[in-house]
Amino acid sequence: MSAQEAERLARATLLRLTEPGDHRVGALVAELGGQALLEALLGQPALLSDDSDLAQRLAGIDPARDLDRAERQGIRFVIPGDAEWPGQLADLRGVTPLHFRAEPPLGLWVRGPVRLTDLDSSVAIVGAREATTYGTSVSGDLAGVVARAGHPVISGAAFGIDVAAHRGALGAGGTTVAVLACGVDRVYPATHRDLLTHLAEHGAVVSELPPGCAPLRIRFLARNRIIAALARGTVVVEAGLRSGALNTAHWAENLHRVVMAVPGPVTSVASVGVHQLIRNGGATVVTQGAEVLELVGDSGDHLLDVARAAPTPRDALTQRHREVLDAVPHTNPAVVTSIARTAGINVTEVRGALGALARQGFVEQLPSGWRLRRQASA
Amino acid sequence: MSAQEAERLARATLLRLTEPGDHRVGALVAELGGQALLEALLGQPALLSDDSDLAQRLAGIDPARDLDRAERQGIRFVIPGDAEWPGQLADLRGVTPLHFRAEPPLGLWVRGPVRLTDLDSSVAIVGAREATTYGTSVSGDLAGVVARAGHPVISGAAFGIDVAAHRGALGAGGTTVAVLACGVDRVYPATHRDLLTHLAEHGAVVSELPPGCAPLRIRFLARNRIIAALARGTVVVEAGLRSGALNTAHWAENLHRVVMAVPGPVTSVASVGVHQLIRNGGATVVTQGAEVLELVGDSGDHLLDVARAAPTPRDALTQRHREVLDAVPHTNPAVVTSIARTAGINVTEVRGALGALARQGFVEQLPSGWRLRRQASA
Repeated sequence: MSAQEAERLARATLLRLTEPGDHRVGALVAELGGQALLEALLGQPALLSDDSDLAQRLAGIDPARDLDRAERQGIRFVIPGDAEWPGQLADLRGVTPLHFRAEPPLGLWVRGPVRLTDLDSSVAIVGAREATTYGTSVSGDLAGVVARAGHPVISGAAFGIDVAAHRGALGAGGTTVAVLACGVDRVYPATHRDLLTHLAEHGAVVSELPPGCAPLRIRFLARNRIIAALARGTVVVEAGLRSGALNTAHWAENLHRVVMAVPGPVTSVASVGVHQLIRNGGATVVTQGAEVLELVGDSGDHLLDVARAAPTPRDALTQRHREVLDAVPHTNPAVVTSIARTAGINVTEVRGALGALARQGFVEQLPSGWRLRRQASA
Repeated sequence: MSAQEAERLARATLLRLTEPGDHRVGALVAELGGQALLEALLGQPALLSDDSDLAQRLAGIDPARDLDRAERQGIRFVIPGDAEWPGQLADLRGVTPLHFRAEPPLGLWVRGPVRLTDLDSSVAIVGAREATTYGTSVSGDLAGVVARAGHPVISGAAFGIDVAAHRGALGAGGTTVAVLACGVDRVYPATHRDLLTHLAEHGAVVSELPPGCAPLRIRFLARNRIIAALARGTVVVEAGLRSGALNTAHWAENLHRVVMAVPGPVTSVASVGVHQLIRNGGATVVTQGAEVLELVGDSGDHLLDVARAAPTPRDALTQRHREVLDAVPHTNPAVVTSIARTAGINVTEVRGALGALARQGFVEQLPSGWRLRRQASA
C-alpha cells in the first residue's frame, strides 16, 4: 500500500472518530499527518482526554471496508496530496471567526463527476431556509448568470435559497455542487432526493463527514467553513438574524474571500440578517449576477458598466434651451413674452431658442402661441 | 428703513431677476451684499451679460409691493441677518456637486408657523415620484419615528415618497416642512392642495422662488440643494436611475451631511438608484427609523442596540450538552448507546448529559429510550 493510501485510511479513521472541524485534531494532523497521529493515539489513548472510551470506539472502525463500500456507491474520499485536492482549503488553517477555531478538513467525501479542483472559481450562494418567493427567485437568477459565465455554484442542500441556487445553475446548464452536513449517501432533507440524485449524477455532493453520518446541528457550522473556503466568493441572498448563511459569510470574510449580499425589502424578516451584514460592513451589496461576476471574475473580466438611464433628446440641449423649453406650456399655447417672463430670459433670446426647439421637434407654434409637442413632454 | 429691510428689498428684487441658485449672483451677493450688487447692476447693466434687457425687466419689479402682498397671504421673506435665518445654509458656499456650483439662497419665502431655525436637527426624506406601496409605506413609517423623536421632517411636495413622508410625520404629531421649486403660494401638483394648505397651517412651506413663480425643471435641482443643506441628514427611500432624490443625496454628501438609503427588492426599478447609491459608497444603509435617529441624533442619543435574535434556552447549554442534545431524536426514542454513537461521545458522559438535559426540560425518558420534548425542538 502506498503512503498516500495509508494516509487515506488513517484520515478516514480519524473522521469517524472525531467531529468534523475539531481544531485539535486538525492541527495535529496538519503537523504530524493522519497516520502519525493515529499511531500516537493508539499508543496513548489519553491524548484526546475527553474520549476515555477511544480504544473501544477505534476498534469499531474499519476504514478499508468504508472506502470499499463507498466506492461501490460511486463515492470517493479525497485527501491532501491527491491531484483532486482543492488547494484553497489550506486558507482555513488557524482562522478563528466566532470563537470557532478552524482547520482544513482531513478529507472530503465526494459523489459526482465534478472535480474539486474545478471549484477554484466557484461562487457560493447561500441563504435562509425560510426564504420568500423574492429570495428564491433572486437566488435562482443569480446562480444562472454565475453558472452561465462558467463559475461553478456551491451551496448546501437546504430548503429555500440553497435549492433555488442549484436549480438556477442547473437550468443554465452550469455546474453546481452541494456541500452537506451529513454523509453524502444520506438524503437530507428527504424531499430533496431528486435534487441530490441529480447533483450526484451531473454535479457533485461533498461532505467532510463519512457516509452514514447524521446531519447534527453543530455539523452545519463546520460545513459552512468548507463552503466559504471552497468558493472564491459568497453571496447571501436572504438571512434572518440567526441564519446559518451569516455564519458562512463570517467564514468567508475571515478567509478574505469576497462576501456579497443581496438587499431586500426592509419590511421582510427574511432580509434582516442580510441588512445587518451590510450595515456592519461585512458584505458588498450586489443586485444582479453581473455585479457578482465583476467581483469574483479574473481581473479585467466582466467589467461592469455602471447602469445609467438612457439619455433623452433633452440631454443634448444647451442649458439655456432647456430653460426655455421648461417654460413652454404642455396644453394651452403661450405667447413669446409670456414664456420669456416665466423663464426669466429676454424675449429676443427666447424667440431664437423656440425656433431651434421647434426644428428639433420639441415645441410647436400654433396661431395662439407655443406649446410642447406631445413626444417632448417626457 | 433699516439696513436689514433695505437688504431684504434688494434680495427680493434679485430673486425675481435671476434663477434660484445662480452661482454668479450668489457669489456676488455673498461678497458685496444684495444692495451693493443691485446698485452696481443699475449702474452697469452689462454686468450680467446674458441679460441685455436687464434694465427693462428691473423696471417691472416692485419688491415692496411683493412683500406687502406676501404678508397679506401669511408669507414672510427671511434673509441672512434675520433671527430666523438657518445658519446651516452657509455650508452651501462653493459646494460643487455634478457641475452645478452652489451658493446659499439669497432668501427664503416661508408660509407656516414652523421657524427655519427649528430645522437644524431635521431629517430630509426624499424619493421617487413613481414610488411603490413598499416605498410609501417605509417612507411614512420612517417619518413617523423621526418626527416622534422630535426631529422635523423635510421633503418636497411631489407624489410618492415626499407626500408619504409628510403624512407619516403629521400622523405622528410631528413637524414637517415642504421645500418647493415654485412659489409658496402655488399648488403643485394640484392634487396636493389639502396637504400644502395643512402644511402652511401646521408646518411650513418654503421656497427660494418668489410667490407666483412656476415649477420649472431646473428649479428642482436648485431646490434640492436647499433640502440637503437645511437637513442634518437625508434619507433616500426609493429612487430610479434618474430620480431627483439622487441629486438631493449628492448635495447632502457634498455638504458632509449624513446620507442614508433604504434598500428594497433588487427586482424593483424603484430601488435601482438607491442600490447604486449604496454600491457607490454614497449612503449608509438604514432599515428602520431607529437607525436614522442613531445617525442624526446628538452624540449619545438614540444609541441603538444591534438587533440580535432572542436568546434561546439552548444558548445557555455547554457545547458538550448541545452536542448530546443534537443527537437526541425528535420522535422515536433512542437508547443511550445509540445517542452516544451518533454524537461521537462516550456513553458515560452522554448518560450524565441526558440527565441534566431532562432536568432542564429539553429531553424526556420513555421506556424505549430518550427523545426531545416538544418545546425543545425549536
